[in-house]
Amino acid sequence: MNQTLTAASPNNLIDLFQRTRARTDALVAPLCPEDMMLQSMEDASPAKWHLAHTTWFFEEFILKPHEPGYTSLDDRFAFLFNSYYVQAGPRHARDKRGLVSRPDGQAVRDYRSHVEDSLAALLSRNREDADEIARLVELGCHHEMQHQELLVTDLLHGLSFNPLMPTYKDPEPVQVTEEVPLTYTRHPGGMDEIGHAGNGFAYDCEGPRHKLYLQDFDMADRPVTNADWIAFMEDGGYRDARHWLMEGHAVATREGWQHPLYWWRQDDEWWTYTLRGPQPVALNAPVVHVSYYEAEAFARWAGARLPTEAEHEIAFRDVPIEGNLMGEAKDTGALRPLPGQGVWGDVWEWTSSDFAPYPGFRAPEGALGEYNGKFMVNQRVLRGGSCATPREQMRPTYRTFFYPHQRWQMLGLRLAKDVV
Amino acid sequence: MNQTLTAASPNNLIDLFQRTRARTDALVAPLCPEDMMLQSMEDASPAKWHLAHTTWFFEEFILKPHEPGYTSLDDRFAFLFNSYYVQAGPRHARDKRGLVSRPDGQAVRDYRSHVEDSLAALLSRNREDADEIARLVELGCHHEMQHQELLVTDLLHGLSFNPLMPTYKDPEPVQVTEEVPLTYTRHPGGMDEIGHAGNGFAYDCEGPRHKLYLQDFDMADRPVTNADWIAFMEDGGYRDARHWLMEGHAVATREGWQHPLYWWRQDDEWWTYTLRGPQPVALNAPVVHVSYYEAEAFARWAGARLPTEAEHEIAFRDVPIEGNLMGEAKDTGALRPLPGQGVWGDVWEWTSSDFAPYPGFRAPEGALGEYNGKFMVNQRVLRGGSCATPREQMRPTYRTFFYPHQRWQMLGLRLAKDVV
Amino acid sequence: MNQTLTAASPNNLIDLFQRTRARTDALVAPLCPEDMMLQSMEDASPAKWHLAHTTWFFEEFILKPHEPGYTSLDDRFAFLFNSYYVQAGPRHARDKRGLVSRPDGQAVRDYRSHVEDSLAALLSRNREDADEIARLVELGCHHEMQHQELLVTDLLHGLSFNPLMPTYKDPEPVQVTEEVPLTYTRHPGGMDEIGHAGNGFAYDCEGPRHKLYLQDFDMADRPVTNADWIAFMEDGGYRDARHWLMEGHAVATREGWQHPLYWWRQDDEWWTYTLRGPQPVALNAPVVHVSYYEAEAFARWAGARLPTEAEHEIAFRDVPIEGNLMGEAKDTGALRPLPGQGVWGDVWEWTSSDFAPYPGFRAPEGALGEYNGKFMVNQRVLRGGSCATPREQMRPTYRTFFYPHQRWQMLGLRLAKDVV
Amino acid sequence: MNQTLTAASPNNLIDLFQRTRARTDALVAPLCPEDMMLQSMEDASPAKWHLAHTTWFFEEFILKPHEPGYTSLDDRFAFLFNSYYVQAGPRHARDKRGLVSRPDGQAVRDYRSHVEDSLAALLSRNREDADEIARLVELGCHHEMQHQELLVTDLLHGLSFNPLMPTYKDPEPVQVTEEVPLTYTRHPGGMDEIGHAGNGFAYDCEGPRHKLYLQDFDMADRPVTNADWIAFMEDGGYRDARHWLMEGHAVATREGWQHPLYWWRQDDEWWTYTLRGPQPVALNAPVVHVSYYEAEAFARWAGARLPTEAEHEIAFRDVPIEGNLMGEAKDTGALRPLPGQGVWGDVWEWTSSDFAPYPGFRAPEGALGEYNGKFMVNQRVLRGGSCATPREQMRPTYRTFFYPHQRWQMLGLRLAKDVV
Ligand SMILES: [Fe+3]
Ligand SMILES: [Fe+3]
Ligand SMILES: [Fe+3]
Ligand SMILES: [Fe+3]
Repeated sequence: MNQTLTAASPNNLIDLFQRTRARTDALVAPLCPEDMMLQSMEDASPAKWHLAHTTWFFEEFILKPHEPGYTSLDDRFAFLFNSYYVQAGPRHARDKRGLVSRPDGQAVRDYRSHVEDSLAALLSRNREDADEIARLVELGCHHEMQHQELLVTDLLHGLSFNPLMPTYKDPEPVQVTEEVPLTYTRHPGGMDEIGHAGNGFAYDCEGPRHKLYLQDFDMADRPVTNADWIAFMEDGGYRDARHWLMEGHAVATREGWQHPLYWWRQDDEWWTYTLRGPQPVALNAPVVHVSYYEAEAFARWAGARLPTEAEHEIAFRDVPIEGNLMGEAKDTGALRPLPGQGVWGDVWEWTSSDFAPYPGFRAPEGALGEYNGKFMVNQRVLRGGSCATPREQMRPTYRTFFYPHQRWQMLGLRLAKDVV
Repeated sequence: MNQTLTAASPNNLIDLFQRTRARTDALVAPLCPEDMMLQSMEDASPAKWHLAHTTWFFEEFILKPHEPGYTSLDDRFAFLFNSYYVQAGPRHARDKRGLVSRPDGQAVRDYRSHVEDSLAALLSRNREDADEIARLVELGCHHEMQHQELLVTDLLHGLSFNPLMPTYKDPEPVQVTEEVPLTYTRHPGGMDEIGHAGNGFAYDCEGPRHKLYLQDFDMADRPVTNADWIAFMEDGGYRDARHWLMEGHAVATREGWQHPLYWWRQDDEWWTYTLRGPQPVALNAPVVHVSYYEAEAFARWAGARLPTEAEHEIAFRDVPIEGNLMGEAKDTGALRPLPGQGVWGDVWEWTSSDFAPYPGFRAPEGALGEYNGKFMVNQRVLRGGSCATPREQMRPTYRTFFYPHQRWQMLGLRLAKDVV
Repeated sequence: MNQTLTAASPNNLIDLFQRTRARTDALVAPLCPEDMMLQSMEDASPAKWHLAHTTWFFEEFILKPHEPGYTSLDDRFAFLFNSYYVQAGPRHARDKRGLVSRPDGQAVRDYRSHVEDSLAALLSRNREDADEIARLVELGCHHEMQHQELLVTDLLHGLSFNPLMPTYKDPEPVQVTEEVPLTYTRHPGGMDEIGHAGNGFAYDCEGPRHKLYLQDFDMADRPVTNADWIAFMEDGGYRDARHWLMEGHAVATREGWQHPLYWWRQDDEWWTYTLRGPQPVALNAPVVHVSYYEAEAFARWAGARLPTEAEHEIAFRDVPIEGNLMGEAKDTGALRPLPGQGVWGDVWEWTSSDFAPYPGFRAPEGALGEYNGKFMVNQRVLRGGSCATPREQMRPTYRTFFYPHQRWQMLGLRLAKDVV
Repeated sequence: MNQTLTAASPNNLIDLFQRTRARTDALVAPLCPEDMMLQSMEDASPAKWHLAHTTWFFEEFILKPHEPGYTSLDDRFAFLFNSYYVQAGPRHARDKRGLVSRPDGQAVRDYRSHVEDSLAALLSRNREDADEIARLVELGCHHEMQHQELLVTDLLHGLSFNPLMPTYKDPEPVQVTEEVPLTYTRHPGGMDEIGHAGNGFAYDCEGPRHKLYLQDFDMADRPVTNADWIAFMEDGGYRDARHWLMEGHAVATREGWQHPLYWWRQDDEWWTYTLRGPQPVALNAPVVHVSYYEAEAFARWAGARLPTEAEHEIAFRDVPIEGNLMGEAKDTGALRPLPGQGVWGDVWEWTSSDFAPYPGFRAPEGALGEYNGKFMVNQRVLRGGSCATPREQMRPTYRTFFYPHQRWQMLGLRLAKDVV
């Protein structure tokens, strides 16, 4: 999966593993068993499933092939907790994950402990295949961090159907800040390179690093804010078909979209439901929970466009990875976008790029080759990470991808412009 | 709702209430919090919802209107736990009940205690409206018993999606018995009467008692068994459109029905999933989990027909209410049909009768008038009760009703014939 | 199919056949080939299909089995033009009838001529099976008359999707008349009989004639009018869930029903689309194109109820068959309800009766046994005929039936009441 | 729309217009009025609608704005025959085009004549805006040629639902030829340019011409043939999820795809339905009617990949525009792929490129700006033209685009490979 061997010492690896598992535990600490069952749509999974699936990943790809005496707690878990790896065998229907009440929460925690103990034992021994094991453990940790983001956004979606609007974490109000005017930075075009190369972990789809030619472009210095978005709404942006992709307008009409997901109007003010409970929309925070269709229409309305993923990578590759991200281990962070101008964290930024293989891309052999390659159609790349992304997941070449109609992730946007 | 005042002494009433509540508690005793969240389709509800809804019924129709100082634990529960009573205010979407993780199981138990205590206090005082209260408490208990049956069948449906096939209660095997030949008893036609009258509890739709004229008919002396059903299957009964109502065959084809719900073939034997876990199909037990469409096709294949509800009532009104039913209080019974020939218990028996108002029927005023009347279209009456029906619910005039395509209840059949 | 032999002389039979075929020809005379292709939903069929299917009926059930040397114009027509007779072989998908452009209109007319000529030849010869042939020809003519009504209502539905609102026949305005107050006639209950017996044609489902016992009832002396319906609408009848069956209100909400099918509001007046083109709603004509759900809600709003089919038959069995019906041969009539109080013609009147077999009903053997029996679930009986029903189709025992949600036929209602 | 003025003399323009209109007439000459009504899915339109819509285009964008005294035959046609131009006003529902029986075929022909006569009169006069008119007429002709391709493929789809499998044009058998081995030509990468510039007609989305950097690549010298495809099928290609995009496999499974559209197995041979009627699959002709999902899976199975649109353009830009295309005026051509190795004609070739704006693309102002821009999401570019594409439509920069699941167009593929 990852192209290059991370110069991870065994100790660093064990640290990474423990930090990662601890963060998952911290994320579910505020949940009752009932919360962990919520599955509100096929795209989302119950928290309990995320706990088990990330564990299965270590079991399936490390313990089963590399630890001869390993015994699973229950052989049927492979069926229940495989997500989509065809080559790892048959799997349970994705939209029925919310109907698996047993193993219950405690049994899943036992499963986690069993796999953690077995993996610790494996890692504590000198092995000839230590490098390969290290690569797999690192991949498993990054995989679990991806699921941490999903766990959080799936949970928000699941809780949002509860008329009582429960609070997941203490409802700190967002600080009111000054509006930051929208400015752009010019980037000269020409030959350049993007994609991952060299040391350090990366997913297969981030490479090969390759040359490409770009036109000059202007990149906005901050994401689109809630205040910007309200201006679009008040200008009739959702109704005016001229701004929209034909398909986008059809979806928006059919779904009755008139504002971002989780918003409502109350006492002449916009409110939104967050993991901190219901809160007034923070005007100068980046807008979140908007689909690609909406983002694209907004950009056209604003006389701009979305950047390509190459422009995004080139514009921000030298910015240090800091911002409103999830922290280390038990520090689960703000869990909603906050006012600020940074590129890392807060919200994923839609790009206009199709999620496509880079020139020369070849998926690895075997089940792990299914990790990214088989999703390369009809999805758009997003860059920048969000408030639900662990900081150690993020790097400038990181590509995430969603369907143009999806809104439940922490999805926002940043504008770009042609130079004319 | 109930037409006549039951001569229930206050003590009997409190007994009934306590027995009923105890049975609900007993039913959920084997469940983990995750089990109580399962909602596998819109027709079914989570166990936790049943616990809360039956409690809301006492609160909404007795405590709120009749107990001036009564305070609800949470005013929003009325929205969450109203099922369909338009006149009792707006209510939560039925197909989203499985997404209400909070109040969690403990909070719902607290809600139950709060209402039980409040009702006990109310009942302990002398009141002018004692008769009306008595009628409402009795109705609330019968309502809760109806939901006990639903709780059990909804749970079975929810658990059936779990590939691990969990066992709800200890898996006692069904005793193997001799096949009982199918015989019929002749009933002379002429003027007769059906429907409830006189003392004792009954639902509104069981009356008015009224005259009607019947032709002679033959009624089978036992329900259709699994062995009978297998003969139908082996004769190509599911495929041969000549036996079927046009609409029934279309549904069976679209859904791919080739056997009753929960059956599968394993090692040359039919197996079925039950609340006692997976078990071989018991050949001489009544067939269960068949739709009206299937029952109707079976009857035509067998050269017989389904009885009308009037024929069923007249044929069995003098048979004592005994059989494989749920017992008193904490005795939750066999929970699946057992070999035997009785009419009460085991399986509900589809009749050919449309669920329609009896001549002169008038729904009561107010929200409780919505109890039965508004369901009187497209549903078929079933008679006889099932292994999931509390014994004290059952009486010869009892009409339950389901849609012709539904299968998840304990639904079976008994044959009848014209006399020619 | 028909229970009894009509004492039809051969000449009468040929007359009936010719009149019937001539009426079909007259009905399609105003249509261009494109009109005859319209299929606007699965329930409706193109005019061209009706022409061919009614012809196939004579070919399949008379010519093929009874005329040894008969050759079909095209053997594949049996597949194309069988509607639903499983025992007559496989058939084309019902919802794809509008995609059969060939045989074109002329080829279908040739098919009609071929079958007409062959049947004329058959009828002109003395035969041993003359009685059976007579019965089948008579059935085929009644079958074709049923399809004449469908042809007209399917056409109206198909044309209604054309924004140009074409006129099928010259747009005679409906005369303005005085409102007729709503009165009731009392009918004593007791033992009675309904159903067909004796001479004369009738469908299988109209018998056996059988005894039954009725309560006293009041029957309205005129159908519900458009003026009555507007009063219901203006009183918020469509919105107020208290009047509605639960399922009816769900359908009405989902479909956005706020008035009968084909109505719209224009310049403060209600208009409707008819086969005579767009016209203002005639206040004192019977309301038409309302579903059972709407009819049932209206009745409850009006403090009345729908009659049962037995009440309807008993109340009107002695009224001569006259009214706004389709005439003989080429006289296709008014084609929309007109002001008047009669029971025969104008609109079919919903009854509260499930379309069920009468006691002792047995479908005939063979494919013709599929004529009515296999529709006996989830449909409601209507009585009285409509402006699209040929007069010679009508008789007091005639039962037609539709699903509670259907509106595209000429469906209206008449009120009844319990005597209390 | 077109970026550059074609140096079209008035006479050339009139020639182009007449040739184009004559080809449309020739295409519908074999059709009966019923054929011209067929609409088999929302993606397809009736032939009659294509005739009217292409006429409306000239009326709406030339006659109405530029001919002061112009009167339409019927003002309501603008509503009926606008396809998707939001800025040209409201329009009829796309999926209901098959329900517009009137105007009938003759009335649509009258509409065509009226617009043709009016346009001829306009073009015969000297005008100041002659250049703009010329550009619009040229665009209108190219637009009509696009609809000629759609007319043909929509018709094939519509007729394919007819069990009689009608023949549109005389059923010439395809000549049997020798298999041509699959070879590749190597293309060196480096800086290059693609897109339209300079004189000659092109659509907006073909520009701006722009620089880009490519890796070396190998391009197949012939398209994938039916023989190749059968090898894929026989190797279990449709079932083996490893070859497929996840979404592609889900669609293929849901739709039951096991071969290209219109194929079936008969007497141990593959047959296909074409506009020449049913024919055996020609082994050495290019495979046609395969979706992007299938094409992509085939390529992976074959150890190759689909080319990008830039690779395709660069590889073939110097090949003269000759091949199995539709001819001039009344020459409508072979209407199905034929054995051969050419790139132009036969089948459109799927590329892996998302249909996206070229760098610097800006849609023109006004309704004509909706021509291509609003479709730029979720579609894939195809190159090369097909047997249903008029020859004078084709050029190396031409981009057509369809959704990955679509199959009813003349869609095939050609392989490419990375150089490693
Ligand atoms: Fe995963
Ligand atoms: Fe209830
Ligand atoms: Fe018919
Ligand atoms: Fe067009």
